[in-house]
Amino acid sequence: MSLGEVRDLAESVLRRFGLGEAHVQAVAETMVAGERDGCASHGIYRLLVCAHTIKTGKVVPDAVPSVHEPSPAIVRIDAGGGFAQLAFELGRPILAEKARRFGLAALAINHCVHFAALWPEVERLAADGLVAFACTPSHAWVAPAGGRLPVFGTNPIAFGWPRPGPHPFVFDFATSAVARGEIELHRREGRPIPLGWGIDPDGNPTTDAQAALAGAMLTFGGHKGSALATMVELLGGPLIGDMTSAESIALDDGAKASPIGGELIIALDPSGFLGSTALDHIARAESLFDQITSQGARLPSQRRYDARKRSLTEGVDIPGPLLEDIRSLID
Amino acid sequence: MSLGEVRDLAESVLRRFGLGEAHVQAVAETMVAGERDGCASHGIYRLLVCAHTIKTGKVVPDAVPSVHEPSPAIVRIDAGGGFAQLAFELGRPILAEKARRFGLAALAINHCVHFAALWPEVERLAADGLVAFACTPSHAWVAPAGGRLPVFGTNPIAFGWPRPGPHPFVFDFATSAVARGEIELHRREGRPIPLGWGIDPDGNPTTDAQAALAGAMLTFGGHKGSALATMVELLGGPLIGDMTSAESIALDDGAKASPIGGELIIALDPSGFLGSTALDHIARAESLFDQITSQGARLPSQRRYDARKRSLTEGVDIPGPLLEDIRSLID
Repeated sequence: MSLGEVRDLAESVLRRFGLGEAHVQAVAETMVAGERDGCASHGIYRLLVCAHTIKTGKVVPDAVPSVHEPSPAIVRIDAGGGFAQLAFELGRPILAEKARRFGLAALAINHCVHFAALWPEVERLAADGLVAFACTPSHAWVAPAGGRLPVFGTNPIAFGWPRPGPHPFVFDFATSAVARGEIELHRREGRPIPLGWGIDPDGNPTTDAQAALAGAMLTFGGHKGSALATMVELLGGPLIGDMTSAESIALDDGAKASPIGGELIIALDPSGFLGSTALDHIARAESLFDQITSQGARLPSQRRYDARKRSLTEGVDIPGPLLEDIRSLID
Repeated sequence: MSLGEVRDLAESVLRRFGLGEAHVQAVAETMVAGERDGCASHGIYRLLVCAHTIKTGKVVPDAVPSVHEPSPAIVRIDAGGGFAQLAFELGRPILAEKARRFGLAALAINHCVHFAALWPEVERLAADGLVAFACTPSHAWVAPAGGRLPVFGTNPIAFGWPRPGPHPFVFDFATSAVARGEIELHRREGRPIPLGWGIDPDGNPTTDAQAALAGAMLTFGGHKGSALATMVELLGGPLIGDMTSAESIALDDGAKASPIGGELIIALDPSGFLGSTALDHIARAESLFDQITSQGARLPSQRRYDARKRSLTEGVDIPGPLLEDIRSLID
């Protein structure tokens, strides 16, 4: 399929499910970006996830996000219970303008439903010449280091850095050892999971995907990952007056809809620190990237950018069964 | 020794080495804090490190830090080649005032010599009711995931969150798998290191401390830790117009002095996001901490706070050989 066809399909499904038109376009665009970059789990597969969230009534399909400016360098978007994408679109130019005016600024998105990756957001800000950091809690599935009960979400952290040329430096990773979907996949296929991904309900290390899903996932990097997951809970939760992952999953109440809550994005303007010399230092950062790539190590988003290049000319392959599942949503 | 005696010893050594009086007090205070909190590697052991850095001429002992305000929400302190502590002391109240005025603010410390932990800084800001994030590059000792040559420093990340009661939530960890000093210690004692700490000069995993020191250290958490280490390089280096870890070690030129470069600190004011309801949400964060501690997991700084409680009443034990080494500096 061409990316245009992917977009058309996504939009028509979302429209059929009653999503407001502004949401349709914003949500479809992130799915196209996921598909384009070879991130199948954040591509049009998410139509199934969105459809389920809409059907359970956990998202306000025609929410109208509202803008608040509680402090000079902070913009807060109340998403009104809608998907996060439209709120981000609304907040992004205000965040960028504030970052340029004050040197740095924050965008807090509140009361949103979150199912997407964060890299499209930090990549967009980096394309505007800004350094960006984003994080969001999710549903409490992950135990703290040394514990056995879920407290944290998969709590992703994303970062973007502007580069000369088409592709900024971007990373976006879960602070859990692995995505929950990865464990689900192993369960469905009856395959064991590596040690370190999860623990069983008694807190013992397990290679049984079903036991890990019933028990708790683990953070990456032991107590360090656990500390970062806590930071994400705090920044994307209480700091901005929104829910923790434990509160989000309690509200979900077994519906298995996408997490509800907040997201924090911080943008920093290199010119705000360095004035007209900022471009020289941005160029100097390139030698850091060269030191990484010249020894054969990969930059975090390289695989995505390679996939993007292919997709833009060759289109993307959508597995037949997935396409059937999606089409059956609107038949 | 009582903490007062530790302070007196540290100050007299630093004075004898010609450090300016304002630096003496600021630097001694971080060593007292390290000793008090049971962080021996950041206690008065660092007097040996400081003395070496002063002797090699890599620090300006009487540097006078200067204040710059390149943007409304940014304060930049040029440390003038001196130790970072005094620059932080000078910048802290300005950072706090800006965070309260704009909602968030950044403090960039430039041209400083850095040998201390970051937790005293974020803990101090959290005591002011602010959420704080800090990071700094160091010397290039750590290879990127998938590589074999050192590019990153041990690049610590620290975070502080204000809590009711005496102790904020604070973490401070290296993005390397372990501190370099830990590998040095294994080498001196002839003990093997665990796999995952380092690689030999050919890029092979090694348990030989000497080989890892000659080769490269590894990041914690594989490619995720490597991504974070890159972020620290960028934020504490080019973003603020300062050196990367590779540039710092090149400048050191074999002197084995402390790293020279920059540090970025971001402070966020919960009231700037939430106005008068901020305290309610800070209180709500307490239930997150309860969920962690009630299942027997530890909060990151708990061990430090426990040691602090003991030290304040009982004083601290300084190993005899260390005390001799320190006293021989000034005999």
